[in-house]
Amino acid sequence: MHTHETELRVRYEETDQMGVVYYSNYLVWFEVGRAECIRSLGTSYKEFERHGVHIVVAEAYCKYQFPARYDDVIIIRANLSEIRSRSMKYMYKVLRKADRKLLASGYTTHVFVDKNGKPMKIPKWVLGYIKKKN
Amino acid sequence: MHTHETELRVRYEETDQMGVVYYSNYLVWFEVGRAECIRSLGTSYKEFERHGVHIVVAEAYCKYQFPARYDDVIIIRANLSEIRSRSMKYMYKVLRKADRKLLASGYTTHVFVDKNGKPMKIPKWVLGYIKKKN
Amino acid sequence: MHTHETELRVRYEETDQMGVVYYSNYLVWFEVGRAECIRSLGTSYKEFERHGVHIVVAEAYCKYQFPARYDDVIIIRANLSEIRSRSMKYMYKVLRKADRKLLASGYTTHVFVDKNGKPMKIPKWVLGYIKKKN
Amino acid sequence: MHTHETELRVRYEETDQMGVVYYSNYLVWFEVGRAECIRSLGTSYKEFERHGVHIVVAEAYCKYQFPARYDDVIIIRANLSEIRSRSMKYMYKVLRKADRKLLASGYTTHVFVDKNGKPMKIPKWVLGYIKKKN
Repeated sequence: MHTHETELRVRYEETDQMGVVYYSNYLVWFEVGRAECIRSLGTSYKEFERHGVHIVVAEAYCKYQFPARYDDVIIIRANLSEIRSRSMKYMYKVLRKADRKLLASGYTTHVFVDKNGKPMKIPKWVLGYIKKKN
Repeated sequence: MHTHETELRVRYEETDQMGVVYYSNYLVWFEVGRAECIRSLGTSYKEFERHGVHIVVAEAYCKYQFPARYDDVIIIRANLSEIRSRSMKYMYKVLRKADRKLLASGYTTHVFVDKNGKPMKIPKWVLGYIKKKN
Repeated sequence: MHTHETELRVRYEETDQMGVVYYSNYLVWFEVGRAECIRSLGTSYKEFERHGVHIVVAEAYCKYQFPARYDDVIIIRANLSEIRSRSMKYMYKVLRKADRKLLASGYTTHVFVDKNGKPMKIPKWVLGYIKKKN
Repeated sequence: MHTHETELRVRYEETDQMGVVYYSNYLVWFEVGRAECIRSLGTSYKEFERHGVHIVVAEAYCKYQFPARYDDVIIIRANLSEIRSRSMKYMYKVLRKADRKLLASGYTTHVFVDKNGKPMKIPKWVLGYIKKKN
C-alpha cells in the first residue's frame, strides 16, 4: 500500500558515546516517517487528533543493520502495510541517503482510540484518505 | 528557602559522541530535582495538575563546569529560591556523588497557569505546603 | 537465567501530548534495566567498555499493554534469557509498582564488538560473571 | 555577524502532557540551528571533529515566550554573535513559521577543546571560514 519517503539529518543529541545513533531514536524516526506518510495522503495526524481520533502504538520492532552517524542524511521509508477495522500496521526502512545503504528496518502496529482512550473503529473519513491512494 | 537533594544515575541514552552527557539533559535533571523538591514538601506536581495548577517554565539557564559521564551517580540539589504571587524561581547544583564535584549549576523561573494556560496567582493551598518548610 | 528488577520514576520529559509515556522511552528503560541487571552480577557495562567490550543492539521489540503515566513508579524486570558465543538476548517486563500491573513487555538481542566495532566472542571473564549467577 | 535560519517540524516525541514542546528540546533545536549555521559557512561541525576540534557548551540560556506545538513548522534563527580567541557565543530566536511569532530566544557560549578535552585556541582554518562571511 501507500509508501512515503521522508528525509532528516542526524542530530548530535541522537548520538551516544559509542559514536552512533542511540537505538531508541529509530522509533522516533519511525514516528516522523508515519506522520509524513499520513500528510502525503492529504491530511495529517494533527487533524486526526483535532477530530478525536488517536492512534496508539501496540507494538514496535526494529532490526539494526548498520549504524547511523552524526550529520548523516537519513531516509525514512514508511509503508502503511495493513489496515483492519480497528488497527493498522506500518513497515519502515531506514536508509543512509548518500548510498541508500539499509541501516535498519522495522514495523509498528497501532490501534485507534477516541479521546477517552477507548478503542474505536477507524472512522470512514480517515479510511477515505487512505483508500484514495491505494 | 527549601532545598532538596535527589540522586539519579546517568543513562547511556543521555551521553553523546563526545563521551559525555548531552547538554539539554541537565534541564531534564533540573525537572527531576524540582519534582522531588515538591514531593519533599508533602505534595507532588502531579497533585498540582490534578487540581488544575500548572507550572510552566519561563526561563532556564545552565552553566556547565565539568562533564557528567555514563554511569555516574549524580546529585541534583534543587532550591526553591524565590516565591512571588504569580511566579517562582528554582536554583540548582548538579554534583557528582562520588566526590561531590560541582558539574553544573543553573536556575529556572516559572509562572503558574490554569488548565487553559491562563496565568494565575499561586493558590493558597500550594503556598501552604511551601510555607510549612520555610 | 539471571533476572533483576530496577525501579525508576516517570519523568515529565518522558510524557507526550496524549498524556502517557512516549513509546520510544520504553527502550531507554530496557537499557536501564539491562545495566542494573549487569551490575547485580558484580560488574558493570561501564567496566565492559573500559576493557574494550561493547555490546550493540541487533534487535528490539516492545509490546505496549497499558500506558505508563507521569510520576508512576515503574519496575523494569530484566532477564538475561540467552547467551551464545557471540550474542545474547534480554527479555523485559515493565510493571507499575503500585499494583504490579503489566504495562509492557519486550526483548532485545545484542552482539559483542570490540572498540573498532568488529564482532567478537564474549570474553571468558565476562562469561565468568554471568555463569556465577546462573 | 553571520546569521542563518533553519526549519524543522515539531515531533510528537518533543511534546509533553501539557500539550506543548518540553522545555529542554529548545536546546536541541539550538544545536540544530548552530550546526546548520556552521554548514552555511561552507564547512560542518562534523568536519571540525574530524580534525580534532571540539566545541563544548559552557552556558545555555533560554527564555520561553509562547509554546511550540506538535506539527508546527519552526524556524531556528542562529547568530554567531561573538568570537574570541578561545570561545564563541551564539544567539537564537525560535519562530513559528506560519506567522513568524517569536516562541523563544536564548544563547549558548562555547569553548574550543582538542580531542583530549584540553582547551585550545580557535584554529586559523576554522576562523577562515567564519571571517569569509562576516
